[in-house]
Amino acid sequence: MNEKYVMVTFQAGHDYWKRALKGFEDAADALNVSIEYRGAAQYDVNEQITVLEQVIAKKPDGIAISAIDPDKITTTINKAVDAGIPVVLFDSGAPSSKAQTFIGTNNYNAGVMGAEEMAALLNNKGKVGIVTLPNQLNHQERLKGFQETIEKDYPGIEVVEVKDGKGSEPVSRKAANEMLAQYPDLNGIFATEAIGGIGVGSAVSSAKGKNKVKIVSFDTDKQTLDLIKDGTISATLAQGTWKMGYWSLQFLFHLNHKLTADSKLGNISAPPLPANVDTGVSVITKENVGDFYGQ
Amino acid sequence: MNEKYVMVTFQAGHDYWKRALKGFEDAADALNVSIEYRGAAQYDVNEQITVLEQVIAKKPDGIAISAIDPDKITTTINKAVDAGIPVVLFDSGAPSSKAQTFIGTNNYNAGVMGAEEMAALLNNKGKVGIVTLPNQLNHQERLKGFQETIEKDYPGIEVVEVKDGKGSEPVSRKAANEMLAQYPDLNGIFATEAIGGIGVGSAVSSAKGKNKVKIVSFDTDKQTLDLIKDGTISATLAQGTWKMGYWSLQFLFHLNHKLTADSKLGNISAPPLPANVDTGVSVITKENVGDFYGQ
Repeated sequence: MNEKYVMVTFQAGHDYWKRALKGFEDAADALNVSIEYRGAAQYDVNEQITVLEQVIAKKPDGIAISAIDPDKITTTINKAVDAGIPVVLFDSGAPSSKAQTFIGTNNYNAGVMGAEEMAALLNNKGKVGIVTLPNQLNHQERLKGFQETIEKDYPGIEVVEVKDGKGSEPVSRKAANEMLAQYPDLNGIFATEAIGGIGVGSAVSSAKGKNKVKIVSFDTDKQTLDLIKDGTISATLAQGTWKMGYWSLQFLFHLNHKLTADSKLGNISAPPLPANVDTGVSVITKENVGDFYGQ
Repeated sequence: MNEKYVMVTFQAGHDYWKRALKGFEDAADALNVSIEYRGAAQYDVNEQITVLEQVIAKKPDGIAISAIDPDKITTTINKAVDAGIPVVLFDSGAPSSKAQTFIGTNNYNAGVMGAEEMAALLNNKGKVGIVTLPNQLNHQERLKGFQETIEKDYPGIEVVEVKDGKGSEPVSRKAANEMLAQYPDLNGIFATEAIGGIGVGSAVSSAKGKNKVKIVSFDTDKQTLDLIKDGTISATLAQGTWKMGYWSLQFLFHLNHKLTADSKLGNISAPPLPANVDTGVSVITKENVGDFYGQ
């Protein structure tokens, strides 16, 4: 088929997007269509807007985009939708735009999974600290999912402290060291992002020794996987990045070919695609960490 | 193709499932496979278990099931998964089962939509009451989504009262009448289910006159649509029932044909399907209510 679908991400070539692009490619193979990958060279919303404008001008059969800044990119997304180009958002959404579907991690649910993993590691009892980024929405949701699950389902566990790691390894290490000093009987720390988890791992290893305080972290960069392998971090939550790409293209194909019968009702009264697709997180521990290297 | 997929619901022939079955059928046409529809004759988990056992014995290519009682049906669902039969849950999930995917309304998000619709109807200011079923999880989530959205995004609106309508028209009418008496300046009522909405509509019509208090309700049974049409209820939230059926079969087909490349990692480390698919809700008002009759 002579169809072309385009994926637009934050930053061309960034490692994080490789699995999403692989999913997009795998769906393209299955559906026998062509794809193109475009990213802003820097983490810059104005550059992403320019890239998206260029993509729209070529009138592709569909666009999957991960929004750097939902508020600023929404006008350009709507321009694509108004031009009749199917658009889906993945990984980072733009809820006020006219694009109907978001495919990515439900961060609240990811926090729930983090809490359940932590509870299993602690046999449902103990004191837990959290290192997070309190000003960023996805981290607020991870925190909320974690805290509400502990409160509701694990009365034997207490969240004693929540600290800002600022996405920085030294700041997160310092935050963890302060918690370890203030709560000498601390049993676990949940880090809502990877760099923080690495800082926490370093603090625990130095102050207490590996695995003396259970660490649950986030994402699967190489350093985190190495710390899982050597026992410093007990578990990390892997996002379903491949699935984001795969289902983005499947949904665009459905929109483009009007394959969903409910579309006869029109877009406003009954959009044909699911509103939100939670690609889920997988728990990675020493047992399965081997599968994730070189992904 | 000589493939057979089975949909199992609560109650064979119940109106609520017709749209879901239509989605399942439409996907079967697109994929060129056969389907079968099975339901318990009554709302009875033991009967549903028996039906599911019979379905498993026939070794179908996939099963989409809506769980009456997640705890009791989980063992039988796991039996299907262990026998290598792809299983997805729709509309009502079984989160502890081995089935990987749930496709249905995210009730929290539906509550958020309800709050946004109510705020639009009230021009972002006024007093609001809620009639709900406080003991049922899906209604707790709708309530939470509504309340948190009002608190966070609409400081001009106050939720003054939450009452139990017990899913009964007279009880909901009484609850609404009490609210109208206690808060003579009440501007809106959100009903988290259809029967409650009908009771609230009756109370408001008698006490104040149609449309004097804005009502946002849930679902699209004929009586609710009639009350939308005559102006008693301002808006109702329609669930994406057709999409539940359509995407259930698409996902089962993907599992059955191992079409998702990540499945090479095995089910535990990276399940190939999205974890949760929120089929979303559509807002129905006087303008688009015509589309929904006879669905």
